[in-house]
Amino acid sequence: MTEPWLPSLTTATPEEGFALAVKLSRTAVKMAQPSEEIRTRLRSAYEDNADSLIAISHVVAANFQTVAAANDYWREA
Amino acid sequence: MTEPWLPSLTTATPEEGFALAVKLSRTAVKMAQPSEEIRTRLRSAYEDNADSLIAISHVVAANFQTVAAANDYWREA
Amino acid sequence: MTEPWLPSLTTATPEEGFALAVKLSRTAVKMAQPSEEIRTRLRSAYEDNADSLIAISHVVAANFQTVAAANDYWREA
Amino acid sequence: MTEPWLPSLTTATPEEGFALAVKLSRTAVKMAQPSEEIRTRLRSAYEDNADSLIAISHVVAANFQTVAAANDYWREA
Amino acid sequence: MTEPWLPSLTTATPEEGFALAVKLSRTAVKMAQPSEEIRTRLRSAYEDNADSLIAISHVVAANFQTVAAANDYWREA
Amino acid sequence: MTEPWLPSLTTATPEEGFALAVKLSRTAVKMAQPSEEIRTRLRSAYEDNADSLIAISHVVAANFQTVAAANDYWREA
Repeated sequence: MTEPWLPSLTTATPEEGFALAVKLSRTAVKMAQPSEEIRTRLRSAYEDNADSLIAISHVVAANFQTVAAANDYWREA
Repeated sequence: MTEPWLPSLTTATPEEGFALAVKLSRTAVKMAQPSEEIRTRLRSAYEDNADSLIAISHVVAANFQTVAAANDYWREA
Repeated sequence: MTEPWLPSLTTATPEEGFALAVKLSRTAVKMAQPSEEIRTRLRSAYEDNADSLIAISHVVAANFQTVAAANDYWREA
Repeated sequence: MTEPWLPSLTTATPEEGFALAVKLSRTAVKMAQPSEEIRTRLRSAYEDNADSLIAISHVVAANFQTVAAANDYWREA
Repeated sequence: MTEPWLPSLTTATPEEGFALAVKLSRTAVKMAQPSEEIRTRLRSAYEDNADSLIAISHVVAANFQTVAAANDYWREA
Repeated sequence: MTEPWLPSLTTATPEEGFALAVKLSRTAVKMAQPSEEIRTRLRSAYEDNADSLIAISHVVAANFQTVAAANDYWREA
């Protein structure tokens, strides 16, 4: 019934691939903390914390490794 | 006797692959802390901690790298 | 004289591969802290700490990447 | 309308590839904290913190893995 | 004049490969803190800290990924 | 005008490759904190901190993965 949130790892461009990496990172957080209310409250904490932002960037980097490999690094693009 | 909890790394879709990555991440926690009672108590702590949630997302990303590679990134899908 | 603790990275199933990843993670800890008495004492600390358990799961994920690649992801299984 | 910020992972040299890895790391931070004012304030904190700088270097390393692979490690260069 | 400390990434067995991963992890520490006296003092701190030991195991896992790949996972062994 | 600081990822030996991984790790720190004065001050802090040294070793491990792959693990050496 519901649309799949992750139909494919293929994206048209590196930029869309990076956005997908961000989405993967956020989805794992949502699965561990499904309450949008709590996540919104937590956001106001980490948004102001340099180390949290660096940690977020690290997670995105890990997911971007996967997405980029899946797209063969968009070499033909 | 017991069903294997990890019969294969192959999944039909990226979405199921991501769910498997979450399962792998949780299983490693279970192996280090087998008591469900303690894990439930700990959950109420990390669920409210942005840095813990980001760390969880990082573990899922690492496992998703493995699962995605195992499925050749679901390129044919 | 002593049996090798790591004769091979090859395992029959993904589940055994995951157990091997756990073993690799623990062995590195043992090499840094050989005293079983101290490790047992430390265990009572990290077992009750969500962030420690998440960190353990991250190490297992890293080692599972290696073991899974060594087994070509058990694709034939 | 806007120029893509990430048109390609291909760079002419390893050095440009490293700069791109830095850019990827920063862009993920920007996406999590879009306010330039807050980011500038946070910068004065992490710039003086050794552990934050080490963490930043780790994120760059993760992104450089991706960029270097995308360029086949500039082996022909 | 001095013997190279890292003549090759090739090892005869997985176990020697794991020992090499430990060596790589320690060498990076030595390069950042060359004083053996200080390292010995620090050791008494981290040896008693579960999170430090887990972090050490993570570094070893990262280096073991490299060594294992270099040896094609000792598949012929 | 200036010499490129990273002309190539290719090195003659594994040992030089490891030194390059250390250089990559330090360069990312320099880019985030260009002041040599501040970096020198911070060094006196992290040099005495076991967890910082372990974190540094982790960054070097990540960069060494890249450099080692770029050199095909110096298998012919």
